[in-house]
Amino acid sequence: MQLLEERIRRDGKVKDGNVLKVDSFLNHQMDVKLFGEMAKEFYNLFQNDKVNKILTIEASGIGIACITAQVFDCPVIFAKKSKTKNIAGEVYTAQVESFTHGGVYDIIVSKEFFGPGDRVLIIDDFLANGAALTGLADIVCQAGAVPVGAGIAIEKAFQPGGEMLRKKGMRVESLARIRSMSPAGIEFCR
Amino acid sequence: MQLLEERIRRDGKVKDGNVLKVDSFLNHQMDVKLFGEMAKEFYNLFQNDKVNKILTIEASGIGIACITAQVFDCPVIFAKKSKTKNIAGEVYTAQVESFTHGGVYDIIVSKEFFGPGDRVLIIDDFLANGAALTGLADIVCQAGAVPVGAGIAIEKAFQPGGEMLRKKGMRVESLARIRSMSPAGIEFCR
Repeated sequence: MQLLEERIRRDGKVKDGNVLKVDSFLNHQMDVKLFGEMAKEFYNLFQNDKVNKILTIEASGIGIACITAQVFDCPVIFAKKSKTKNIAGEVYTAQVESFTHGGVYDIIVSKEFFGPGDRVLIIDDFLANGAALTGLADIVCQAGAVPVGAGIAIEKAFQPGGEMLRKKGMRVESLARIRSMSPAGIEFCR
Repeated sequence: MQLLEERIRRDGKVKDGNVLKVDSFLNHQMDVKLFGEMAKEFYNLFQNDKVNKILTIEASGIGIACITAQVFDCPVIFAKKSKTKNIAGEVYTAQVESFTHGGVYDIIVSKEFFGPGDRVLIIDDFLANGAALTGLADIVCQAGAVPVGAGIAIEKAFQPGGEMLRKKGMRVESLARIRSMSPAGIEFCR
């Protein structure tokens, strides 16, 4: 998606450790007009998939997911991150390894929001190692629902998550796929 | 706002300890159509206040804030919750006491997103003791910006936050104000 790539080039900042800072428009300050254009793109990609629910994960996926849900005319559910193991039985859970912060955390979704018959589009801001996306898809499958695919804003294509998930058969659509990046510049996949 | 009050009566669940569960439409699963109607109401209330930025706090304020920002045609910034004290100098911080979870946490906003001249509308899902709202307004003031007011989905008017903030001179507009609630029913302020 050209608009997003241009924005990443203009306002993204590459930091040590393969960190791409896009917090001026994507995940701290949020440009909701840009999100509207991204939402249309996700709709173009998944409009024939009978999506009836969108699943994302707190916190930075929520804005993009909500604006995408307007276009799909469906509700959003966000998975909550939890470090407590003390969980009631009425939730689906999955473990997610955090590469950014280290360690493992649980993600949690109340069972009342997903069941067989649901066709779920997963939305998130970043795809790198694929840990969060794997956990979210796991939760959809636990519910007996269908994960129709994942719509991602920015994929770090030089990290293994995207390839790993596509090899498993998940449809992953990323609006901007970064082939390489350094403080000197960002190259996108073509 | 009648639509929101009706939805709270229909789908809200009152739990022990003055807890109102609205996670089927507000803060776990999110009804973005309802959010659209709430956004219009916030716009009716604050349209003459020259709002140029919206501030909220992760996670459950983000969806409402993003959809409200579409109507105001402005960006959203969400404050991050942090338990780390190890913060770089480039952020505004405020301490917030958590009545739900106990203890104190810091909220953080990067300094680059607010400055003098900004007119900031604060959006959040709940107002009870007013701790988060006080912290958010503090951050706006640290930046030399103007907090034009707060737009809240649900105010627990039987808790002290709303009165305390209004007495301090903050304009607080809540779309549903609960006077009392119990498992037998919910009464709204008129």
